[in-house]
Amino acid sequence: MELANANCLVFVLNGQRTEVDLSQIHPETTLLSYLRYHTQYKGAKLGCGEGGCGACVVHLSKYNTDTKETQEFSISSCLTLLGSIDGCSITTTEGLGNCRDGYHAIHKRVAGFHASQCGYCTPGWCMSLYGALRQADAKGNNDHRHGFSNISVLEAEKAVAGNVCRCTGYRPIADVCKSFAGDVDLEDLGLNTFWKKDEFPDPNKLPEYNPTGVSTDSKFCRPRCEDFRTSSLNFSYKDEFSGEERVWIRPSTLDEVLGALEKAAEENVEPKLVVGNTSAGIYKNIEPKVFVDIRNISELQIIKRHDSGIEVGAAVTIAKLIKALEDTNAIADDILDHGKENPTRSLVFESLANHLKKVASAFIRNTASIGGNIIMAKKLSFDSDVATILLGANTSVKIISTERLESELTMEEFLDKPCLDSRVLLLSVFIPNWNEVSNPAGNNGSAKFDEKLLFKTYRTAIRPLGNAVSYVNAAFLAQISLSRHQGNLVAKSLRLAFGAYGVSHAIRATTVEEFLVNKVISPDVLLEAIEMLKLQIIPVEGTPKSAYRQSVAVGFLFDFISPLVKDIVPPCITDSLEVNNNQSDSTFNHEKCSFKTKSIIDGKQTMEFHDEYTPVGQPSAKVAAELQASGEAVFVDDIPSPDNCLHGAFVYSKKALALIKKVDVKDALESPSVVYYISYSDIPKQGKNISVDGRYGEEILFAEDTVECFGQPIGLMVANTWHDAKRAADKVSVDYDCETLGPPILSVEDAGAKNSFYNVPQIVAPKPVGDLAKGMSEADIRIESAEVRTGSQYYFYLETQTVLAIPDEDECMVVYSACQNPDVSQKTIAKCLGIPTHNVRVITRRVGGGFGGKGFRSIPVSSCKQKFHFSPCFLLTSFRATLIKCYTTFYTFA
Amino acid sequence: MELANANCLVFVLNGQRTEVDLSQIHPETTLLSYLRYHTQYKGAKLGCGEGGCGACVVHLSKYNTDTKETQEFSISSCLTLLGSIDGCSITTTEGLGNCRDGYHAIHKRVAGFHASQCGYCTPGWCMSLYGALRQADAKGNNDHRHGFSNISVLEAEKAVAGNVCRCTGYRPIADVCKSFAGDVDLEDLGLNTFWKKDEFPDPNKLPEYNPTGVSTDSKFCRPRCEDFRTSSLNFSYKDEFSGEERVWIRPSTLDEVLGALEKAAEENVEPKLVVGNTSAGIYKNIEPKVFVDIRNISELQIIKRHDSGIEVGAAVTIAKLIKALEDTNAIADDILDHGKENPTRSLVFESLANHLKKVASAFIRNTASIGGNIIMAKKLSFDSDVATILLGANTSVKIISTERLESELTMEEFLDKPCLDSRVLLLSVFIPNWNEVSNPAGNNGSAKFDEKLLFKTYRTAIRPLGNAVSYVNAAFLAQISLSRHQGNLVAKSLRLAFGAYGVSHAIRATTVEEFLVNKVISPDVLLEAIEMLKLQIIPVEGTPKSAYRQSVAVGFLFDFISPLVKDIVPPCITDSLEVNNNQSDSTFNHEKCSFKTKSIIDGKQTMEFHDEYTPVGQPSAKVAAELQASGEAVFVDDIPSPDNCLHGAFVYSKKALALIKKVDVKDALESPSVVYYISYSDIPKQGKNISVDGRYGEEILFAEDTVECFGQPIGLMVANTWHDAKRAADKVSVDYDCETLGPPILSVEDAGAKNSFYNVPQIVAPKPVGDLAKGMSEADIRIESAEVRTGSQYYFYLETQTVLAIPDEDECMVVYSACQNPDVSQKTIAKCLGIPTHNVRVITRRVGGGFGGKGFRSIPVSSCKQKFHFSPCFLLTSFRATLIKCYTTFYTFA
Repeated sequence: MELANANCLVFVLNGQRTEVDLSQIHPETTLLSYLRYHTQYKGAKLGCGEGGCGACVVHLSKYNTDTKETQEFSISSCLTLLGSIDGCSITTTEGLGNCRDGYHAIHKRVAGFHASQCGYCTPGWCMSLYGALRQADAKGNNDHRHGFSNISVLEAEKAVAGNVCRCTGYRPIADVCKSFAGDVDLEDLGLNTFWKKDEFPDPNKLPEYNPTGVSTDSKFCRPRCEDFRTSSLNFSYKDEFSGEERVWIRPSTLDEVLGALEKAAEENVEPKLVVGNTSAGIYKNIEPKVFVDIRNISELQIIKRHDSGIEVGAAVTIAKLIKALEDTNAIADDILDHGKENPTRSLVFESLANHLKKVASAFIRNTASIGGNIIMAKKLSFDSDVATILLGANTSVKIISTERLESELTMEEFLDKPCLDSRVLLLSVFIPNWNEVSNPAGNNGSAKFDEKLLFKTYRTAIRPLGNAVSYVNAAFLAQISLSRHQGNLVAKSLRLAFGAYGVSHAIRATTVEEFLVNKVISPDVLLEAIEMLKLQIIPVEGTPKSAYRQSVAVGFLFDFISPLVKDIVPPCITDSLEVNNNQSDSTFNHEKCSFKTKSIIDGKQTMEFHDEYTPVGQPSAKVAAELQASGEAVFVDDIPSPDNCLHGAFVYSKKALALIKKVDVKDALESPSVVYYISYSDIPKQGKNISVDGRYGEEILFAEDTVECFGQPIGLMVANTWHDAKRAADKVSVDYDCETLGPPILSVEDAGAKNSFYNVPQIVAPKPVGDLAKGMSEADIRIESAEVRTGSQYYFYLETQTVLAIPDEDECMVVYSACQNPDVSQKTIAKCLGIPTHNVRVITRRVGGGFGGKGFRSIPVSSCKQKFHFSPCFLLTSFRATLIKCYTTFYTFA
Repeated sequence: MELANANCLVFVLNGQRTEVDLSQIHPETTLLSYLRYHTQYKGAKLGCGEGGCGACVVHLSKYNTDTKETQEFSISSCLTLLGSIDGCSITTTEGLGNCRDGYHAIHKRVAGFHASQCGYCTPGWCMSLYGALRQADAKGNNDHRHGFSNISVLEAEKAVAGNVCRCTGYRPIADVCKSFAGDVDLEDLGLNTFWKKDEFPDPNKLPEYNPTGVSTDSKFCRPRCEDFRTSSLNFSYKDEFSGEERVWIRPSTLDEVLGALEKAAEENVEPKLVVGNTSAGIYKNIEPKVFVDIRNISELQIIKRHDSGIEVGAAVTIAKLIKALEDTNAIADDILDHGKENPTRSLVFESLANHLKKVASAFIRNTASIGGNIIMAKKLSFDSDVATILLGANTSVKIISTERLESELTMEEFLDKPCLDSRVLLLSVFIPNWNEVSNPAGNNGSAKFDEKLLFKTYRTAIRPLGNAVSYVNAAFLAQISLSRHQGNLVAKSLRLAFGAYGVSHAIRATTVEEFLVNKVISPDVLLEAIEMLKLQIIPVEGTPKSAYRQSVAVGFLFDFISPLVKDIVPPCITDSLEVNNNQSDSTFNHEKCSFKTKSIIDGKQTMEFHDEYTPVGQPSAKVAAELQASGEAVFVDDIPSPDNCLHGAFVYSKKALALIKKVDVKDALESPSVVYYISYSDIPKQGKNISVDGRYGEEILFAEDTVECFGQPIGLMVANTWHDAKRAADKVSVDYDCETLGPPILSVEDAGAKNSFYNVPQIVAPKPVGDLAKGMSEADIRIESAEVRTGSQYYFYLETQTVLAIPDEDECMVVYSACQNPDVSQKTIAKCLGIPTHNVRVITRRVGGGFGGKGFRSIPVSSCKQKFHFSPCFLLTSFRATLIKCYTTFYTFA
């Protein structure tokens, strides 16, 4: 039963020792795909595949050889590589509880608070919440009332900030989270099945919470992790699609890492350095040949407190950096509490920590490294908050070359200069603490006693929390003179860092800095500075929302500088400066000047119950809500695929309106894992090239001579794996003629001008109500002219478009489809294939979100989200016909 | 798309080029298991797995590098190893026709003649018939009436002699076969849908037969086969169960074969020499480490005609030997027809050929080698007809050692002496032609002009044709003097060979030979000879039907010798001898003395139709009969298994009544491919150890402390493949105490004596009809005492016991079972697991034969026929419970 450890990846999965033969692992395999396709645990779902929706979150616990403690945290399994979890313990939502062993309190409360509708995202929510509860309760010193967690309401809400739900709405989910918090007011929670809204909430009616967490049985994990520093884990795999070898290396010393880099450079290979692999969520199409797992190198994991600041290894995670910054300040607080002098509390650390908590989401911060983030910012122009705020704080970095030469660079130099080729490794970053008061005798970053430090960071993004890249970010640091000559505050030094606004990397607004430094800031000066800033913050050509970004950047500067402006200093800063002066208190109360911190989710539900209508108004949980929470609810992609199942991926048009001159599939078909390419010419003779047969008439399945919209399916690549099908589809080259047909119709006005209308059938045509002309003529106030425009809407149903088609005897087909109209699906498939309708059986049990994408219309979604399966067909001639049966469904409802 | 040929097995499957990566092939993989588990063609079925039922028959065509012709024949895919079909073209019943491309005439006639009931055996019948039709029509000179085959009615019947059907009955199947024969009288055919019984049969109403056969598209097969003599095909595979390497070698020269034997001997490995691998149907539990494919060695494939006889390579198939013997006589006939002298026609050849046609079945003879057969006879005491008749014909063999020393042995020496260790290879056999008249000048086997040769072969078996091992076989050769001194015939020489009667190998009855030679045979002499024979034909201890075998052997001798007995020479032999004397005609008319050759299937169907009851009496085919014939009908084992499906095999009691002292599963669980062992202690707490809940009460699923019958399930081994599950089950050692409980009940009398009765429920209890005592007292003739005994009955349903259990959400289970009582199955499973009945869904579409084995009772069948599947479960704790869901069904209906 047991394979030798040396040839295996060994980890714990839901309490069970699990071994995976190294020779069977493609280094690119994610934990999610391993779980979903090689285990019975399908609870973790594939949503976005980018770490952006949280549907795939699982819990990881791991022995830390430095701290000698077992650490637990949530991770995004769609980004985590399988090779990374050696020696770890993984818990999925099924591991928390299930229909057989009993559900976890989280599952039960999800059901009770009506927090699961389609259920596709629910396992992810559960695991994010579980991660936060473990974070709060892992130490065991639960000092809250019995049955509650150490977590606070605010923390509980933030715990799930990285998860996306489309149908339930966030309030009931937030209620579930808050119900565990020690400081919760149960009367604030919404409708649930535990008590009626008009009853006094009894905490004992809540499904019991056990703060101990589920067992992860990691007895063997600790020794295995201890081995990492001395043992390596290397394996290689022949990628079937490319025919190339893909290698995974886990060195145990820095020297070995540098050796690996040297070797790769000699072989002209760009190695992928792996810590959390979260960059894969952003930069997909890289297929590295060599993966170097650098998580076990001491030098890259250091967290070292100096008098002047903190040094952090490049492989330290963002979550650990936040903790290190907070811990440093906590030590200072502790010293302060004991009345001692010279505490090292740092305003900069506090601000950085607070800002870092808004970067990505908890499950990403738990594995993403600080080094990885700024390398992305430097090399790939990633719109990093981290780089900007570190630039603002005057961070420096240490690098080492394969010749073992170390050097130190400022963040400006690092971002600006071509200092990082593949022979250079980022070792660490050094963040100065800028503690002006606490350390008056210090030289580094020190400030005179009559000076104050101002440090603020900013970001504006589509969401305040949870995996939203900034439109603009900024970090400003100012050393302000307290000697109010002529009654004014003056900045002795100033750092103004901006990023993400459409720039290749974060920059300092040096002309503005120079202009403002040592200057009494009048409103005119401020206005002049703003004009100067506008000249510096110029998004590159093609950046969306350019004007908005520029104006936000200006707003940030205004917010930071305005308290210094002559005559308009608001009371808060004066107060705080005065307080500081009087009491030698270094805490600059910048919170008061910040945007107000609010509870994320707030609202009121009012509902009246009348017993006379009972059972109407009785609390009643959604059927299978607990199953959805525990991940046991079976969605289409959770149905076990048949052996030798083939997978398909569409080839999409990249033009909105064009003639197709040629489709070249030769390259794609060369791979041994690619089985077939299907296009309109494969439609059976008795069938029809039809993708939907709905209210607005028929649409074609595959483009023939013309493409009429961007993303229109042209063909379907079929391969042994979904991954390879997608890669094959990407390899197809289509030659378009964009001239002949003229420009595409891109607006309603265009369509009107070109008389391009759908025939709206009577049944859905709007019917006039009342007499508009009469009403208008009688109105007191008339709207003479108005224009309303709405932006485009992305149908972000969380469940990816999936269909499983299993051929049955006598030209029949069983189709498992996550569609909202199985009847239309059946009709369309039959018509496409030219077979009787009764030969097609469409089965829909659940739909993981609809939102327009799973109804009548077959709307092609982004290729990364599509897959489908069908049964083994080795004979290509009959295979064609068999296949056709699948893609129709796919297109119709996928 | 195309793998390099060098690393692949390349063949044609239903017209399509197919490649299999050599590194993925376990040398033990059969063609059947490849077809069933790695292709979409599930038409070939697993029945007996021994080449004995014909359910797995497929068609093979292959370029013969010696004759430069493509040869076609049917084969047993359950015995043919995948490694053997390199360069061949395989056609399954789906390849003949299917619902998409249209059915083949065979399929249509199967439906029309009502020749398919359960349908499990039907694809095999179709392919056997197709093989015979191709044999008759491959040369293209179809000289029969349009729409008919060259095949004769008698040949058509014999074509399917190796196939077994349990439910339809053979008459309609024979009708299908005969309907293709050129010499058929259509009025003899039974009821069908093509014409009414009272109509004059119109051959044009039969679905049209195209004698060209289906395309096998073997363009690339010929060059590949031509390469065999110069290229080798070697591959190895790590057997997961044993952890050992398994090697396949296909040498291209005799020297390489001997080298391989030498190497194997040095490594103390017993190599398996592969020609047709048909011995695997008899001797299963051999797991060879090295397979040496010797089919491409010229020396082993020779067929050489000498003046004195014919030399045949050891790897020549029985079918080819028959053809060689017949061809030799045909040449002689041809010479005779042209009035030339000295034809070499041989009575011995004719008799041997006729006898060989009764050995095994057509699809076995097509691949089984003559050498393999006599090696089995020698080494494994196989009850070979071939060895006996060759011994009777005074055959000699040639062997070669790894030191390259050749030697020749008589068949007696070969069978008797320890001349064959693993360093010795059987090269060829030499069969003398004994043509006494045709070759008067010859020295070998020659006879004087006044002498006659008598040669007859005999066999008695459970069936006259079709894969039945003989109870006794024999071959007698006598040179008889024609100079009737004193009016008597005298045997100048005599060979009396007997075999299969319970003896380690065929022997000569030498004392009887010596006693009879040169003796005038009076009735007393014959009786004395018979008594002497009885002393020699003594079956070894424990041989079933010993007395019967002995008496049959005596009968054979009597049949052969009686024509020579003084005063009772029957007219036939006198006539023929006289004719021979007068006309120099060498044809000894032995047919007249043989048992009469009859049509195998004969009968009459009478049916009256009354139009007034129409549609009663209207011909109407069984629904899906064509689908059954074309192999597209989906039986349980044809349902595609889910990915990572696990397989189970029972551990059976080998005692009829005993206490179980210990069950040791340690060894079995050591294999990495074995996942779990389940026994009664794994039954869920809320469940019950129950295997059937039927009319006669409950029975337990797994033996607890006691076993109460031979074959009672004790536990279930679960592994990644069915094959490995069986091997694991075989490895379990059970320690029994057979003393304490005393002897088992083995007869009705025992049961009566021990008062061991079932409680027969009222509903099935027999009800008395009439007054027995009164009737008897009034009867004219009374039966005072009578005893009727029936033997045991083997429930030989052709479809093996199979169940596919797929866990569904919320403790539900979908069970696909080939059972006749899905309701009882559902009830039993639910009770066993302690879950609600509505959580269990049992689906039965088809049952491939019932016969008592698939109804109420769960009757364990022989372990080689059992398998079942269930979904992946990696977590053993939950796995237990999941598994339980499966085996219950299995036991109940398997």
